[in-house]
Amino acid sequence: MHILVIGGAGMVGRKFIERLARDGGLGGKAIDKVTAQDVFPASAPANAPFAFESLTSDLSQPGEAEKLIASRPELIVHLAAIVSGEAEADFDKGYRINLDGTRYLFDAIRLVGDGYKPRVIFTSSIAVFGAPFHDKIEDEFFTTPLTSYGTQKAIGELLLSDYSRRGFFDGVGIRLPTICVRPGAPNKAASGFFSNIIREPLNGEEAVLPVSDQVRHWHASPRSAVGFLVHAATMDTNAIGPRRALTMPGYSATVAEQIEALRKVAGENVVKRIKRVPDPVIDAIVAGWPRNFDAKCAPALGFKAESSFEEIIRAHIDDELGGTFVA
Amino acid sequence: MHILVIGGAGMVGRKFIERLARDGGLGGKAIDKVTAQDVFPASAPANAPFAFESLTSDLSQPGEAEKLIASRPELIVHLAAIVSGEAEADFDKGYRINLDGTRYLFDAIRLVGDGYKPRVIFTSSIAVFGAPFHDKIEDEFFTTPLTSYGTQKAIGELLLSDYSRRGFFDGVGIRLPTICVRPGAPNKAASGFFSNIIREPLNGEEAVLPVSDQVRHWHASPRSAVGFLVHAATMDTNAIGPRRALTMPGYSATVAEQIEALRKVAGENVVKRIKRVPDPVIDAIVAGWPRNFDAKCAPALGFKAESSFEEIIRAHIDDELGGTFVA
Repeated sequence: MHILVIGGAGMVGRKFIERLARDGGLGGKAIDKVTAQDVFPASAPANAPFAFESLTSDLSQPGEAEKLIASRPELIVHLAAIVSGEAEADFDKGYRINLDGTRYLFDAIRLVGDGYKPRVIFTSSIAVFGAPFHDKIEDEFFTTPLTSYGTQKAIGELLLSDYSRRGFFDGVGIRLPTICVRPGAPNKAASGFFSNIIREPLNGEEAVLPVSDQVRHWHASPRSAVGFLVHAATMDTNAIGPRRALTMPGYSATVAEQIEALRKVAGENVVKRIKRVPDPVIDAIVAGWPRNFDAKCAPALGFKAESSFEEIIRAHIDDELGGTFVA
Repeated sequence: MHILVIGGAGMVGRKFIERLARDGGLGGKAIDKVTAQDVFPASAPANAPFAFESLTSDLSQPGEAEKLIASRPELIVHLAAIVSGEAEADFDKGYRINLDGTRYLFDAIRLVGDGYKPRVIFTSSIAVFGAPFHDKIEDEFFTTPLTSYGTQKAIGELLLSDYSRRGFFDGVGIRLPTICVRPGAPNKAASGFFSNIIREPLNGEEAVLPVSDQVRHWHASPRSAVGFLVHAATMDTNAIGPRRALTMPGYSATVAEQIEALRKVAGENVVKRIKRVPDPVIDAIVAGWPRNFDAKCAPALGFKAESSFEEIIRAHIDDELGGTFVA
């Protein structure tokens, strides 16, 4: 089979392609080729038993989606997006890439016709929900985003369901929790501290905690995110029905619980590297975010995430740090 | 003030403009001019104390929205849409008009800049909800449409809220109940019988009832629909908050209750003109429609509808039949 990963140079895309290389196949099928499209070149995974191609292009330009679809990939994973902060800062760019780009892709698939009906995985976000919401957001809660990014993702979900219902492709929409522990350098995204306070101390570095211990949020590891993609690619979609956007399972933890899990896994010395520097701006932003979910559909359909924050930390130590850390 | 009514030649648009002509103003303000845009010419209302202009154009063509906005109307009522059946039959046309047309309009307003911030009323539909749903659909129930029309309306609602949140305009989205009694000739829309079984017997004509007496549905009169528009145009939108799409109030009745109301208002002779001719196709379509709502937000914000089906019938007799009917 041929797999197209749009946004394939990003963190989740790279990890998904690396997993395909390790697994050597997908859902019992051999993989002939993986194409990673992005605005940056994607590096080839190590020891891949399939051909790998990196394509750089801008999906938001008319005609580019058609080029990607010309080879008729059986599986298309659409991860490309302008992230929340940038979509808010640059209105045109956010709509052009997150809405127009997605629609170009969906229409390019639709217009092939003649029975071409790939599996399409669309990564959405819990940003489709806007406050006020329930402490545990149910699967049937309405999507009233408070960002342009969340709006664009909610529109993508609607298009995904309609195009699937009409039989143009076989779509699965997965709403990702906040990915934690995010590898790489600390970043200034408002959500960055959730990962920073785990990753940096495990590296022997200090990390800043800008919010109260009582802040609660919804997490899943990068390993789980890749697992969601693999499951979405291989599951029986007849079981989903027409509502194709699914809130993925995750683990809800307060910052205090995150820190306590870090203490259990890595000890007091590591925890001491977290410095409390309250930042009222970040506190206010985070107050508008979902804290917890009552995700029933996705687990019933076989999607799995961590069931403790220790597990999330151990996945990071195993997958990113070779099983060790700076004690 | 200058008012632009997009889709102004349709039933609700005409009635809204006629009401403006009767009222002579809107929310205590004088009206200088009303522009009715549509693909067909709109006829001028009788005795209007304002200038009236009918413009024929296709909103789904790039550049047409800018022309409509060039005169900077303070109030824009966007009623134009390809209806449900046609949007399902012609995928491209539905998306072009219901999605692209709406986005062209919203962007034309946004791109004026320099403080132009009109009130924009977007008419949505209970078609944004798809079965299965609760017997009474709550304001916070999710929008998972089962038609392309419903998808396009749900996307319009998301755009309306985001553009309002960003301050590009001041939007109010109103989800209309099924409008009953719809004036004019019987039509073959699957929902047509809800109006046909009242209107035709009152005209001395037979009408076909294709479904069971126990079918329940959600109704408001054309008079209420116009009232929703007037209220949406004049209300304090600060009270709405960021969730700009509101399920309008309506009256939930079974077909048996509709018939009983007709008996009370018009007598047994009129009721006898309803002929039962079961049609399993229509029965199956209607089974997927919302039956009832628990609309709390919109009434709390001052939107009003009928509180009995007799009222709906009397509004029809008063507004369409000059207060009389064929007994």
